[in-house]
Amino acid sequence: MRTWDKLAVVGPGLIGGSVGLAALRRGVVSGVVGIGRSQTSLQAAVNLGVVTEATLDLAAGVREADLVVVCTPVDDIPYYVERAAAHCRPGTLITDAGSTKVEIVERLEQAQAAGGDWVAGVRFVGSHPLAGNDKRGSVFANAELFVDRTVVITPTLASQPEDVAALREFWEALGATSVVMSPAEHDRAVAVTSHLPHLVSSAIAAATPAEYVTLTAGGWQDTTRIAAGDPLLWRQIFLANKGNLLTALERFDHVLRSLRLAVEAGDAAGLERLLTEGKRIRDAVGN
Amino acid sequence: MRTWDKLAVVGPGLIGGSVGLAALRRGVVSGVVGIGRSQTSLQAAVNLGVVTEATLDLAAGVREADLVVVCTPVDDIPYYVERAAAHCRPGTLITDAGSTKVEIVERLEQAQAAGGDWVAGVRFVGSHPLAGNDKRGSVFANAELFVDRTVVITPTLASQPEDVAALREFWEALGATSVVMSPAEHDRAVAVTSHLPHLVSSAIAAATPAEYVTLTAGGWQDTTRIAAGDPLLWRQIFLANKGNLLTALERFDHVLRSLRLAVEAGDAAGLERLLTEGKRIRDAVGN
Repeated sequence: MRTWDKLAVVGPGLIGGSVGLAALRRGVVSGVVGIGRSQTSLQAAVNLGVVTEATLDLAAGVREADLVVVCTPVDDIPYYVERAAAHCRPGTLITDAGSTKVEIVERLEQAQAAGGDWVAGVRFVGSHPLAGNDKRGSVFANAELFVDRTVVITPTLASQPEDVAALREFWEALGATSVVMSPAEHDRAVAVTSHLPHLVSSAIAAATPAEYVTLTAGGWQDTTRIAAGDPLLWRQIFLANKGNLLTALERFDHVLRSLRLAVEAGDAAGLERLLTEGKRIRDAVGN
Repeated sequence: MRTWDKLAVVGPGLIGGSVGLAALRRGVVSGVVGIGRSQTSLQAAVNLGVVTEATLDLAAGVREADLVVVCTPVDDIPYYVERAAAHCRPGTLITDAGSTKVEIVERLEQAQAAGGDWVAGVRFVGSHPLAGNDKRGSVFANAELFVDRTVVITPTLASQPEDVAALREFWEALGATSVVMSPAEHDRAVAVTSHLPHLVSSAIAAATPAEYVTLTAGGWQDTTRIAAGDPLLWRQIFLANKGNLLTALERFDHVLRSLRLAVEAGDAAGLERLLTEGKRIRDAVGN
Protein backbone atom coordinates (compact mmCIF):
# COMPACT_ATOMS: atom_id res chain seq x y z
CA MET A 1 0.00 0.00 0.00
CA ARG A 2 1.26 3.41 -0.99
CA THR A 3 1.79 5.72 1.96
CA TRP A 4 1.35 9.45 1.88
CA ASP A 5 3.02 11.99 4.05
CA LYS A 6 1.58 15.30 2.98
CA LEU A 7 -1.77 16.03 1.36
CA ALA A 8 -2.64 19.31 -0.33
CA VAL A 9 -6.29 20.27 -0.62
CA VAL A 10 -7.17 23.02 -3.08
CA GLY A 11 -10.45 24.48 -1.83
CA PRO A 12 -10.86 23.21 1.75
CA GLY A 13 -14.65 23.70 1.96
CA LEU A 14 -17.29 21.08 2.80
CA ILE A 15 -15.74 18.37 0.60
CA GLY A 16 -12.10 19.47 0.70
CA GLY A 17 -12.25 20.12 4.42
CA SER A 18 -13.79 16.70 4.99
CA VAL A 19 -11.02 15.08 2.93
CA GLY A 20 -8.42 16.83 5.10
CA LEU A 21 -10.15 16.06 8.38
CA ALA A 22 -10.81 12.43 7.52
CA ALA A 23 -7.24 11.89 6.30
CA LEU A 24 -5.80 13.41 9.48
CA ARG A 25 -8.13 11.64 11.89
CA ARG A 26 -7.53 8.29 10.25
CA GLY A 27 -3.77 8.76 10.17
CA VAL A 28 -3.69 8.50 6.37
CA VAL A 29 -1.39 11.54 6.14
CA SER A 30 0.74 13.43 8.64
CA GLY A 31 -0.16 16.90 7.41
CA VAL A 32 -2.66 18.70 5.20
CA VAL A 33 -1.98 21.98 3.43
CA GLY A 34 -5.13 23.92 2.65
CA ILE A 35 -4.89 26.12 -0.43
CA GLY A 36 -7.55 28.77 -0.98
CA ARG A 37 -8.29 32.27 -2.15
CA SER A 38 -9.52 33.79 1.10
CA GLN A 39 -7.32 34.25 4.14
CA THR A 40 -10.41 34.26 6.37
CA SER A 41 -11.68 30.91 5.08
CA LEU A 42 -8.23 29.38 5.30
CA GLN A 43 -7.80 30.60 8.88
CA ALA A 44 -11.18 29.04 9.73
CA ALA A 45 -10.04 25.74 8.19
CA VAL A 46 -6.86 25.80 10.29
CA ASN A 47 -8.78 26.70 13.45
CA LEU A 48 -11.25 23.89 12.80
CA GLY A 49 -8.37 21.46 12.40
CA VAL A 50 -9.43 20.35 8.92
CA VAL A 51 -5.98 21.35 7.61
CA THR A 52 -2.68 21.64 9.47
CA GLU A 53 -1.39 24.59 7.47
CA ALA A 54 -2.76 26.94 4.87
CA THR A 55 -1.60 29.20 2.09
CA LEU A 56 -2.95 31.46 -0.64
CA ASP A 57 0.03 30.45 -2.79
CA LEU A 58 -0.80 27.32 -4.76
CA ALA A 59 2.74 26.80 -5.99
CA ALA A 60 4.10 26.81 -2.44
CA GLY A 61 1.22 24.74 -1.11
CA VAL A 62 1.64 21.80 -3.48
CA ARG A 63 5.46 21.78 -3.47
CA GLU A 64 5.81 19.15 -0.70
CA ALA A 65 2.61 17.24 -1.37
CA ASP A 66 2.45 13.55 -2.25
CA LEU A 67 -1.21 13.86 -3.16
CA VAL A 68 -3.17 16.90 -4.29
CA VAL A 69 -6.97 16.89 -4.21
CA VAL A 70 -8.67 19.75 -6.06
CA CYS A 71 -12.08 20.45 -4.50
CA THR A 72 -13.18 23.61 -6.29
CA PRO A 73 -16.31 24.19 -8.38
CA VAL A 74 -16.04 22.07 -11.56
CA ASP A 75 -15.28 24.94 -13.93
CA ASP A 76 -12.15 25.80 -11.96
CA ILE A 77 -10.79 22.27 -11.57
CA PRO A 78 -8.72 22.02 -14.79
CA TYR A 79 -7.07 25.37 -14.08
CA TYR A 80 -6.03 24.40 -10.54
CA VAL A 81 -4.90 20.92 -11.54
CA GLU A 82 -2.72 22.42 -14.27
CA ARG A 83 -1.24 24.94 -11.88
CA ALA A 84 -0.60 22.22 -9.30
CA ALA A 85 0.99 20.01 -12.00
CA ALA A 86 3.37 22.83 -12.83
CA HIS A 87 4.63 23.19 -9.29
CA CYS A 88 4.66 19.85 -7.53
CA ARG A 89 7.39 17.24 -7.36
CA PRO A 90 7.73 14.39 -9.88
CA GLY A 91 5.68 11.44 -8.63
CA THR A 92 2.93 13.53 -7.10
CA LEU A 93 -0.54 12.25 -7.81
CA ILE A 94 -3.29 14.79 -8.44
CA THR A 95 -7.01 14.08 -8.27
CA ASP A 96 -10.19 16.09 -7.87
CA ALA A 97 -13.65 15.79 -6.34
CA GLY A 98 -15.67 17.19 -9.23
CA SER A 99 -19.22 16.04 -9.98
CA THR A 100 -18.54 15.76 -13.72
CA LYS A 101 -15.58 14.02 -15.29
CA VAL A 102 -15.48 14.03 -19.12
CA GLU A 103 -14.71 17.72 -19.66
CA ILE A 104 -12.19 17.84 -16.84
CA VAL A 105 -10.35 14.65 -17.73
CA GLU A 106 -10.23 15.42 -21.47
CA ARG A 107 -8.90 18.88 -20.95
CA LEU A 108 -6.23 17.66 -18.54
CA GLU A 109 -5.13 14.80 -20.78
CA GLN A 110 -4.68 17.27 -23.61
CA ALA A 111 -2.77 19.61 -21.33
CA GLN A 112 -0.49 16.86 -20.12
CA ALA A 113 0.06 15.49 -23.62
CA ALA A 114 0.92 19.01 -24.78
CA GLY A 115 3.60 19.21 -22.11
CA GLY A 116 3.83 22.90 -21.31
CA ASP A 117 4.47 23.57 -17.63
CA TRP A 118 3.40 20.07 -16.57
CA VAL A 119 6.19 18.56 -14.42
CA ALA A 120 7.27 15.18 -15.78
CA GLY A 121 6.12 12.27 -13.61
CA VAL A 122 3.16 14.19 -12.16
CA ARG A 123 -0.11 12.49 -13.01
CA PHE A 124 -3.80 13.23 -12.75
CA VAL A 125 -6.64 10.72 -12.29
CA GLY A 126 -10.18 12.00 -11.67
CA SER A 127 -12.31 11.14 -8.63
CA HIS A 128 -15.87 11.90 -7.63
CA PRO A 129 -16.92 11.19 -4.05
CA LEU A 130 -20.71 10.73 -4.04
CA ALA A 131 -21.05 12.63 -0.79
CA GLY A 132 -21.90 16.13 0.29
CA ASN A 133 -25.05 18.09 0.84
CA ASP A 134 -26.40 21.59 0.33
CA LYS A 135 -23.97 23.15 2.82
CA ARG A 136 -20.78 25.04 1.99
CA GLY A 137 -17.59 25.79 3.89
CA SER A 138 -15.06 24.02 6.07
CA VAL A 139 -17.27 24.67 9.10
CA PHE A 140 -19.44 21.80 7.79
CA ALA A 141 -16.46 19.49 7.22
CA ASN A 142 -17.04 16.05 8.66
CA ALA A 143 -14.46 13.31 9.16
CA GLU A 144 -17.18 10.71 8.52
CA LEU A 145 -18.51 12.27 5.29
CA PHE A 146 -17.13 9.49 3.09
CA VAL A 147 -17.98 6.55 5.32
CA ASP A 148 -20.11 4.05 3.41
CA ARG A 149 -20.28 6.41 0.45
CA THR A 150 -19.17 5.57 -3.06
CA VAL A 151 -16.20 7.28 -4.70
CA VAL A 152 -15.99 6.90 -8.46
CA ILE A 153 -12.48 6.91 -9.92
CA THR A 154 -12.33 7.63 -13.64
CA PRO A 155 -9.05 6.59 -15.27
CA THR A 156 -8.49 6.59 -19.02
CA LEU A 157 -6.26 4.48 -21.26
CA ALA A 158 -3.48 6.90 -20.43
CA SER A 159 -3.74 6.30 -16.68
CA GLN A 160 -1.30 4.14 -14.72
CA PRO A 161 -2.90 1.20 -12.90
CA GLU A 162 -0.79 1.91 -9.81
CA ASP A 163 -2.23 5.43 -9.62
CA VAL A 164 -5.76 4.04 -9.76
CA ALA A 165 -4.91 1.51 -7.06
CA ALA A 166 -3.35 4.22 -4.91
CA LEU A 167 -6.42 6.44 -5.25
CA ARG A 168 -8.75 3.57 -4.39
CA GLU A 169 -6.69 2.93 -1.27
CA PHE A 170 -6.78 6.59 -0.35
CA TRP A 171 -10.56 6.97 -0.58
CA GLU A 172 -11.16 3.61 1.06
CA ALA A 173 -8.90 4.67 3.92
CA LEU A 174 -11.39 7.54 4.42
CA GLY A 175 -14.18 4.98 4.79
CA ALA A 176 -15.56 5.00 1.24
CA THR A 177 -16.17 2.24 -1.25
CA SER A 178 -14.42 2.92 -4.56
CA VAL A 179 -15.61 2.00 -8.02
CA VAL A 180 -13.76 2.51 -11.27
CA MET A 181 -15.43 3.55 -14.51
CA SER A 182 -14.67 5.64 -17.54
CA PRO A 183 -15.35 9.38 -17.41
CA ALA A 184 -18.12 8.92 -20.00
CA GLU A 185 -19.82 6.12 -18.05
CA HIS A 186 -19.56 8.20 -14.90
CA ASP A 187 -21.14 11.27 -16.47
CA ARG A 188 -24.01 9.26 -17.95
CA ALA A 189 -24.77 7.64 -14.59
CA VAL A 190 -24.61 10.75 -12.40
CA ALA A 191 -26.77 12.65 -14.89
CA VAL A 192 -29.51 10.22 -13.81
CA THR A 193 -28.65 9.71 -10.14
CA SER A 194 -27.61 13.23 -9.19
CA HIS A 195 -27.99 15.98 -11.78
CA LEU A 196 -31.55 15.15 -12.87
CA PRO A 197 -32.87 14.89 -9.27
CA HIS A 198 -31.26 18.23 -8.52
CA LEU A 199 -32.80 19.96 -11.54
CA VAL A 200 -36.23 18.50 -10.77
CA SER A 201 -35.92 19.35 -7.09
CA SER A 202 -35.21 22.97 -8.03
CA ALA A 203 -38.23 22.98 -10.34
CA ILE A 204 -40.52 21.73 -7.55
CA ALA A 205 -39.25 24.43 -5.19
CA ALA A 206 -39.48 27.17 -7.82
CA ALA A 207 -43.03 26.05 -8.74
CA THR A 208 -44.23 26.45 -5.13
CA PRO A 209 -46.03 29.77 -4.59
CA ALA A 210 -44.80 31.64 -1.50
CA GLU A 211 -48.29 31.58 0.06
CA TYR A 212 -48.22 27.78 0.18
CA VAL A 213 -44.89 27.50 1.98
CA THR A 214 -46.55 27.05 5.38
CA LEU A 215 -48.46 24.07 3.99
CA THR A 216 -45.34 22.12 3.10
CA ALA A 217 -44.47 19.04 5.14
CA GLY A 218 -41.87 16.26 5.18
CA GLY A 219 -42.46 15.13 1.61
CA TRP A 220 -41.90 18.57 0.08
CA GLN A 221 -38.95 19.17 2.41
CA ASP A 222 -37.20 15.94 1.45
CA THR A 223 -37.93 16.32 -2.23
CA THR A 224 -36.63 19.89 -2.41
CA ARG A 225 -33.72 19.66 0.07
CA ILE A 226 -31.03 19.77 -2.61
CA ALA A 227 -32.67 22.80 -4.21
CA ALA A 228 -30.95 24.74 -1.41
CA GLY A 229 -27.60 23.88 -3.00
CA ASP A 230 -25.38 26.59 -4.43
CA PRO A 231 -26.79 27.82 -7.78
CA LEU A 232 -23.34 28.66 -9.16
CA LEU A 233 -21.89 25.21 -8.44
CA TRP A 234 -24.89 23.48 -9.90
CA ARG A 235 -25.27 25.47 -13.09
CA GLN A 236 -21.62 24.65 -13.77
CA ILE A 237 -22.32 20.95 -13.22
CA PHE A 238 -25.46 20.98 -15.39
CA LEU A 239 -23.70 22.72 -18.27
CA ALA A 240 -20.59 20.53 -17.98
CA ASN A 241 -22.84 17.48 -18.33
CA LYS A 242 -25.43 19.00 -20.63
CA GLY A 243 -25.91 16.17 -23.14
CA ASN A 244 -26.34 13.45 -20.53
CA LEU A 245 -28.57 15.64 -18.40
CA LEU A 246 -30.88 16.33 -21.34
CA THR A 247 -31.05 12.60 -22.09
CA ALA A 248 -31.88 11.85 -18.46
CA LEU A 249 -34.51 14.58 -18.52
CA GLU A 250 -36.10 13.04 -21.58
CA ARG A 251 -36.36 9.70 -19.83
CA PHE A 252 -37.82 11.37 -16.74
CA ASP A 253 -40.32 13.31 -18.90
CA HIS A 254 -41.43 10.08 -20.46
CA VAL A 255 -42.14 8.47 -17.07
CA LEU A 256 -43.84 11.61 -15.76
CA ARG A 257 -46.00 11.76 -18.90
CA SER A 258 -47.14 8.17 -18.25
CA LEU A 259 -48.06 9.13 -14.69
CA ARG A 260 -49.94 12.21 -15.91
CA LEU A 261 -51.85 10.24 -18.51
CA ALA A 262 -52.87 7.70 -15.88
CA VAL A 263 -54.10 10.51 -13.59
CA GLU A 264 -55.97 12.21 -16.46
CA ALA A 265 -57.61 8.96 -17.48
CA GLY A 266 -58.47 8.05 -13.88
CA ASP A 267 -56.59 4.80 -14.57
CA ALA A 268 -56.22 3.55 -10.98
CA ALA A 269 -54.54 0.27 -11.91
CA GLY A 270 -52.06 1.90 -14.30
CA LEU A 271 -51.25 4.63 -11.80
CA GLU A 272 -50.69 2.13 -9.01
CA ARG A 273 -48.43 0.07 -11.29
CA LEU A 274 -46.25 3.09 -12.08
CA LEU A 275 -46.05 4.08 -8.41
CA THR A 276 -45.15 0.51 -7.53
CA GLU A 277 -42.30 0.60 -10.05
CA GLY A 278 -40.94 3.76 -8.43
CA LYS A 279 -41.31 2.24 -4.97
CA ARG A 280 -39.49 -0.92 -6.05
CA ILE A 281 -36.45 1.07 -7.18
CA ARG A 282 -36.56 3.36 -4.12
CA ASP A 283 -36.85 0.41 -1.75
CA ALA A 284 -33.76 -1.17 -3.34
CA VAL A 285 -31.68 1.78 -2.11
CA GLY A 286 -32.89 2.15 1.48
CA ASN A 287 -32.37 5.13 3.81
CA MET B 1 -62.02 24.25 26.34
CA ARG B 2 -63.95 21.14 25.43
CA THR B 3 -62.75 18.04 27.23
CA TRP B 4 -62.82 14.56 25.82
CA ASP B 5 -63.00 11.33 27.68
CA LYS B 6 -62.88 8.67 25.04
CA LEU B 7 -61.37 8.80 21.57
CA ALA B 8 -62.07 6.29 18.84
CA VAL B 9 -59.51 5.84 16.08
CA VAL B 10 -60.65 4.06 12.94
CA GLY B 11 -57.47 2.67 11.37
CA PRO B 12 -54.81 2.87 14.11
CA GLY B 13 -51.78 2.76 11.76
CA LEU B 14 -48.96 5.29 11.50
CA ILE B 15 -51.24 8.34 11.66
CA GLY B 16 -54.12 6.88 13.67
CA GLY B 17 -51.75 5.19 16.09
CA SER B 18 -49.86 8.46 16.55
CA VAL B 19 -53.13 10.28 17.24
CA GLY B 20 -53.97 7.72 19.92
CA LEU B 21 -50.51 7.67 21.45
CA ALA B 22 -50.17 11.47 21.48
CA ALA B 23 -53.65 11.93 22.98
CA LEU B 24 -52.93 9.40 25.73
CA ARG B 25 -49.44 10.64 26.53
CA ARG B 26 -50.59 14.23 26.72
CA GLY B 27 -53.62 13.40 28.85
CA VAL B 28 -56.02 14.73 26.21
CA VAL B 29 -58.24 11.65 26.59
CA SER B 30 -58.51 8.89 29.16
CA GLY B 31 -58.93 6.05 26.70
CA VAL B 32 -58.55 5.26 23.02
CA VAL B 33 -60.50 2.57 21.19
CA GLY B 34 -58.75 1.32 18.10
CA ILE B 35 -61.07 0.07 15.37
CA GLY B 36 -59.60 -1.98 12.55
CA ARG B 37 -60.10 -4.88 10.20
CA SER B 38 -57.28 -7.15 11.36
CA GLN B 39 -57.14 -8.72 14.81
CA THR B 40 -53.36 -9.02 14.50
CA SER B 41 -52.85 -5.34 13.75
CA LEU B 42 -55.22 -4.33 16.52
CA GLN B 43 -53.45 -6.56 19.01
CA ALA B 44 -50.15 -4.95 17.99
CA ALA B 45 -51.66 -1.50 18.54
CA VAL B 46 -52.82 -2.51 22.04
CA ASN B 47 -49.46 -4.08 22.87
CA LEU B 48 -47.66 -0.95 21.68
CA GLY B 49 -49.91 1.16 23.91
CA VAL B 50 -51.14 3.35 21.05
CA VAL B 51 -54.74 2.40 21.94
CA THR B 52 -56.15 1.21 25.25
CA GLU B 53 -58.69 -1.15 23.73
CA ALA B 54 -59.48 -2.47 20.29
CA THR B 55 -62.35 -3.94 18.33
CA LEU B 56 -63.22 -5.15 14.86
CA ASP B 57 -66.79 -3.90 15.44
CA LEU B 58 -67.04 -0.27 14.40
CA ALA B 59 -70.52 0.20 15.86
CA ALA B 60 -69.36 -0.99 19.29
CA GLY B 61 -66.09 0.91 19.07
CA VAL B 62 -67.62 4.34 18.47
CA ARG B 63 -70.55 3.95 20.88
CA GLU B 64 -68.86 5.60 23.86
CA ALA B 65 -66.58 7.96 21.94
CA ASP B 66 -66.65 11.75 22.29
CA LEU B 67 -64.41 12.11 19.29
CA VAL B 68 -63.90 9.76 16.35
CA VAL B 69 -60.89 10.17 14.04
CA VAL B 70 -61.02 8.19 10.80
CA CYS B 71 -57.47 7.46 9.60
CA THR B 72 -58.04 5.08 6.70
CA PRO B 73 -56.99 5.48 3.06
CA VAL B 74 -58.95 8.39 1.55
CA ASP B 75 -61.31 6.27 -0.55
CA ASP B 76 -62.60 4.53 2.57
CA ILE B 77 -63.05 7.63 4.73
CA PRO B 78 -66.65 8.57 3.76
CA TYR B 79 -67.81 5.00 4.32
CA TYR B 80 -66.31 4.77 7.81
CA VAL B 81 -67.47 8.25 8.81
CA GLU B 82 -71.03 7.37 7.74
CA ARG B 83 -70.91 4.12 9.65
CA ALA B 84 -69.55 5.88 12.73
CA ALA B 85 -72.23 8.58 12.40
CA ALA B 86 -74.88 5.89 12.44
CA HIS B 87 -73.68 4.37 15.71
CA CYS B 88 -72.27 7.03 17.98
CA ARG B 89 -74.04 9.17 20.56
CA PRO B 90 -75.59 12.57 19.77
CA GLY B 91 -72.94 15.24 20.28
CA THR B 92 -70.04 13.11 19.07
CA LEU B 93 -67.67 14.92 16.77
CA ILE B 94 -66.16 12.99 13.87
CA THR B 95 -63.12 14.04 11.89
CA ASP B 96 -60.60 12.35 9.62
CA ALA B 97 -56.94 12.57 8.67
CA GLY B 98 -57.31 12.33 4.90
CA SER B 99 -54.90 14.02 2.49
CA THR B 100 -57.73 15.30 0.27
CA LYS B 101 -60.82 17.07 1.47
CA VAL B 102 -63.29 18.17 -1.25
CA GLU B 103 -64.59 14.74 -2.26
CA ILE B 104 -64.81 13.52 1.35
CA VAL B 105 -66.48 16.62 2.76
CA GLU B 106 -68.97 16.96 -0.10
CA ARG B 107 -70.03 13.37 0.08
CA LEU B 108 -70.48 13.53 3.85
CA GLU B 109 -72.43 16.78 3.74
CA GLN B 110 -74.78 15.21 1.24
CA ALA B 111 -75.12 12.10 3.39
CA GLN B 112 -75.83 14.11 6.52
CA ALA B 113 -78.32 16.36 4.70
CA ALA B 114 -80.05 13.27 3.36
CA GLY B 115 -80.46 12.00 6.90
CA GLY B 116 -80.51 8.23 6.53
CA ASP B 117 -78.77 6.47 9.40
CA TRP B 118 -76.94 9.59 10.54
CA VAL B 119 -77.62 10.09 14.27
CA ALA B 120 -78.99 13.58 14.98
CA GLY B 121 -76.46 15.84 16.68
CA VAL B 122 -73.44 13.93 15.33
CA ARG B 123 -71.27 16.17 13.19
CA PHE B 124 -68.31 15.79 10.87
CA VAL B 125 -65.58 18.36 10.18
CA GLY B 126 -62.57 17.37 8.06
CA SER B 127 -58.94 17.52 9.19
CA HIS B 128 -55.63 16.91 7.50
CA PRO B 129 -52.52 16.65 9.66
CA LEU B 130 -49.52 17.49 7.43
CA ALA B 131 -47.43 14.79 9.02
CA GLY B 132 -46.42 11.25 8.27
CA ASN B 133 -43.84 9.56 6.14
CA ASP B 134 -43.49 6.53 3.91
CA LYS B 135 -43.98 4.06 6.77
CA ARG B 136 -47.15 2.16 7.60
CA GLY B 137 -48.51 0.54 10.73
CA SER B 138 -48.93 1.31 14.40
CA VAL B 139 -45.39 0.06 15.03
CA PHE B 140 -44.24 3.41 13.58
CA ALA B 141 -46.67 5.46 15.69
CA ASN B 142 -44.98 8.36 17.40
CA ALA B 143 -46.40 10.55 20.15
CA GLU B 144 -44.43 13.50 18.76
CA LEU B 145 -45.57 13.10 15.15
CA PHE B 146 -47.74 16.23 15.22
CA VAL B 147 -45.39 18.48 17.17
CA ASP B 148 -44.69 21.63 15.19
CA ARG B 149 -46.63 20.27 12.24
CA THR B 150 -49.60 21.97 10.62
CA VAL B 151 -53.08 20.48 10.78
CA VAL B 152 -55.56 21.91 8.29
CA ILE B 153 -59.19 21.94 9.40
CA THR B 154 -61.69 22.32 6.58
CA PRO B 155 -65.14 23.42 7.72
CA THR B 156 -67.91 24.45 5.34
CA LEU B 157 -70.82 26.87 5.71
CA ALA B 158 -72.72 24.01 7.33
CA SER B 159 -70.11 23.52 10.08
CA GLN B 160 -70.58 24.72 13.65
CA PRO B 161 -67.91 27.18 14.85
CA GLU B 162 -67.69 25.37 18.20
CA ASP B 163 -66.80 22.13 16.41
CA VAL B 164 -64.03 23.88 14.52
CA ALA B 165 -62.75 25.41 17.76
CA ALA B 166 -62.87 22.03 19.49
CA LEU B 167 -60.94 20.36 16.70
CA ARG B 168 -58.31 23.09 16.71
CA GLU B 169 -57.89 22.57 20.44
CA PHE B 170 -57.61 18.83 19.96
CA TRP B 171 -54.87 18.96 17.34
CA GLU B 172 -53.05 21.74 19.16
CA ALA B 173 -53.13 19.67 22.33
CA LEU B 174 -51.17 17.06 20.31
CA GLY B 175 -48.53 19.70 19.60
CA ALA B 176 -49.66 20.87 16.16
CA THR B 177 -50.47 24.29 14.78
CA SER B 178 -53.95 24.40 13.27
CA VAL B 179 -55.09 26.40 10.28
CA VAL B 180 -58.61 26.68 8.91
CA MET B 181 -59.42 26.80 5.22
CA SER B 182 -62.10 25.60 2.87
CA PRO B 183 -61.85 22.08 1.45
CA ALA B 184 -61.28 23.59 -2.03
CA GLU B 185 -58.46 25.87 -0.85
CA HIS B 186 -56.90 22.94 1.00
CA ASP B 187 -56.96 20.66 -2.03
CA ARG B 188 -55.45 23.32 -4.29
CA ALA B 189 -52.61 23.95 -1.83
CA VAL B 190 -51.69 20.34 -1.06
CA ALA B 191 -51.74 19.49 -4.77
CA VAL B 192 -48.70 21.79 -4.97
CA THR B 193 -47.03 21.11 -1.63
CA SER B 194 -47.60 17.38 -1.31
CA HIS B 195 -49.19 15.56 -4.25
CA LEU B 196 -47.02 17.04 -7.00
CA PRO B 197 -43.74 16.38 -5.12
CA HIS B 198 -44.87 12.81 -4.55
CA LEU B 199 -45.73 12.21 -8.21
CA VAL B 200 -42.43 13.75 -9.34
CA SER B 201 -40.47 11.81 -6.73
CA SER B 202 -41.99 8.58 -8.02
CA ALA B 203 -41.08 9.56 -11.58
CA ILE B 204 -37.44 10.18 -10.61
CA ALA B 205 -37.24 6.79 -8.88
CA ALA B 206 -38.98 4.98 -11.74
CA ALA B 207 -36.67 6.67 -14.28
CA THR B 208 -33.54 5.37 -12.52
CA PRO B 209 -32.16 2.23 -14.20
CA ALA B 210 -31.42 -0.56 -11.73
CA GLU B 211 -27.74 -0.60 -12.73
CA TYR B 212 -27.30 2.97 -11.49
CA VAL B 213 -28.74 2.36 -8.04
CA THR B 214 -25.30 1.96 -6.47
CA LEU B 215 -24.37 5.40 -7.80
CA THR B 216 -27.14 7.21 -5.94
CA ALA B 217 -26.22 9.44 -3.03
CA GLY B 218 -27.91 11.80 -0.58
CA GLY B 219 -29.56 13.99 -3.22
CA TRP B 220 -31.31 11.10 -4.98
CA GLN B 221 -32.22 9.53 -1.64
CA ASP B 222 -33.82 12.71 -0.30
CA THR B 223 -35.58 13.50 -3.56
CA THR B 224 -37.08 10.04 -3.91
CA ARG B 225 -37.76 9.21 -0.24
CA ILE B 226 -41.54 9.60 -0.55
CA ALA B 227 -41.58 7.36 -3.62
CA ALA B 228 -41.36 4.52 -1.08
CA GLY B 229 -44.88 5.45 0.09
CA ASP B 230 -47.77 3.04 -0.37
CA PRO B 231 -48.87 3.00 -4.04
CA LEU B 232 -52.49 2.22 -3.15
CA LEU B 233 -52.80 5.14 -0.72
CA TRP B 234 -51.21 7.54 -3.16
CA ARG B 235 -53.08 6.62 -6.28
CA GLN B 236 -56.28 7.20 -4.28
CA ILE B 237 -55.01 10.63 -3.22
CA PHE B 238 -53.92 11.56 -6.75
CA LEU B 239 -57.25 10.57 -8.27
CA ALA B 240 -59.27 12.23 -5.50
CA ASN B 241 -57.43 15.48 -6.25
CA LYS B 242 -56.98 14.99 -9.98
CA GLY B 243 -57.89 18.47 -11.26
CA ASN B 244 -55.65 20.33 -8.83
CA LEU B 245 -52.82 17.87 -9.32
CA LEU B 246 -52.93 18.31 -13.10
CA THR B 247 -52.88 22.10 -12.65
CA ALA B 248 -49.89 21.84 -10.31
CA LEU B 249 -48.17 19.54 -12.79
CA GLU B 250 -48.67 22.07 -15.55
CA ARG B 251 -47.04 24.75 -13.45
CA PHE B 252 -44.15 22.43 -12.60
CA ASP B 253 -43.75 21.47 -16.29
CA HIS B 254 -43.52 25.13 -17.17
CA VAL B 255 -40.70 25.73 -14.68
CA LEU B 256 -38.89 22.54 -15.69
CA ARG B 257 -39.17 23.55 -19.36
CA SER B 258 -37.50 26.88 -18.55
CA LEU B 259 -34.69 25.02 -16.82
CA ARG B 260 -34.29 22.65 -19.77
CA LEU B 261 -34.22 25.49 -22.27
CA ALA B 262 -31.52 27.24 -20.24
CA VAL B 263 -29.44 24.02 -20.17
CA GLU B 264 -29.95 23.43 -23.91
CA ALA B 265 -28.96 27.00 -24.72
CA GLY B 266 -25.97 26.90 -22.36
CA ASP B 267 -27.50 29.99 -20.77
CA ALA B 268 -25.44 30.08 -17.57
CA ALA B 269 -26.97 33.31 -16.25
CA GLY B 270 -30.56 32.20 -16.91
CA LEU B 271 -29.92 28.79 -15.38
CA GLU B 272 -28.35 30.28 -12.28
CA ARG B 273 -31.32 32.68 -11.94
CA LEU B 274 -33.84 29.81 -12.04
CA LEU B 275 -31.81 27.77 -9.53
CA THR B 276 -31.58 30.83 -7.29
CA GLU B 277 -35.37 31.19 -7.39
CA GLY B 278 -35.77 27.55 -6.27
CA LYS B 279 -33.17 28.02 -3.55
CA ARG B 280 -34.93 31.17 -2.29
CA ILE B 281 -38.20 29.29 -1.80
CA ARG B 282 -36.47 26.23 -0.32
CA ASP B 283 -34.46 28.37 2.11
CA ALA B 284 -37.69 30.00 3.32
CA VAL B 285 -38.84 26.63 4.65
CA GLY B 286 -35.72 25.36 6.40
CA ASN B 287 -34.96 21.79 7.57
